[in-house]
Amino acid sequence: MNATTDPQKRTALAPEDYSGPVTLMNQFHVAVGRDDAFVALWTATSEYFRAQPGFRSLRLHRALLDDTTYRFVNVANWESIEQFRAAHATAEFREVVGQPAWAEFPSSPALFEIVVEAQR
Amino acid sequence: MNATTDPQKRTALAPEDYSGPVTLMNQFHVAVGRDDAFVALWTATSEYFRAQPGFRSLRLHRALLDDTTYRFVNVANWESIEQFRAAHATAEFREVVGQPAWAEFPSSPALFEIVVEAQR
Repeated sequence: MNATTDPQKRTALAPEDYSGPVTLMNQFHVAVGRDDAFVALWTATSEYFRAQPGFRSLRLHRALLDDTTYRFVNVANWESIEQFRAAHATAEFREVVGQPAWAEFPSSPALFEIVVEAQR
Repeated sequence: MNATTDPQKRTALAPEDYSGPVTLMNQFHVAVGRDDAFVALWTATSEYFRAQPGFRSLRLHRALLDDTTYRFVNVANWESIEQFRAAHATAEFREVVGQPAWAEFPSSPALFEIVVEAQR
């Protein structure tokens, strides 16, 4: 997972034949002192995703230690890979992630499936 | 976040003055073909944590693409940093993570706080 600022590479990939729910983990490089600017940009962008069919939930995490490589990590759950792909194939998506302000925050997205789940 | 096989470094750190709930993200290097061995070892280890005071929930994720740097990521929520620390300060913890089998799976743990949360 290498961080990118290229809008074309802001989308995580999956094998062609995968079907089922997916979890996106998107890690962001955010300089210390730039948290407010990042969270504002990220929140505006996340509004697009939250309105798309198949979106289930998200959590944006901030590292407790400043020297963590990726200080922000978004973990987002989608009902299906098809709906995740559809949300990343629109003109609105390209516009949202193509904003010049995003160049400051390289990201490293990857898709996962949940293999074990437990709750107290 | 550099991966380690050192049992002493298997614990994520937080600032001394932090208090409140924490989310652990622990990323693991797992060779393709070794998923079953990893999940078996991880599940046995997680039983220790699931029994500790303050444990809330966990999800073990597997990357959909084999060339993802860290193919497995555990995301675990704890009620407080104090309880997280206490769970990592016992003789049983050191025994569990000190198992020779763990040397095959370097991990890169980090602690986070949740800054934005949304659900459909």
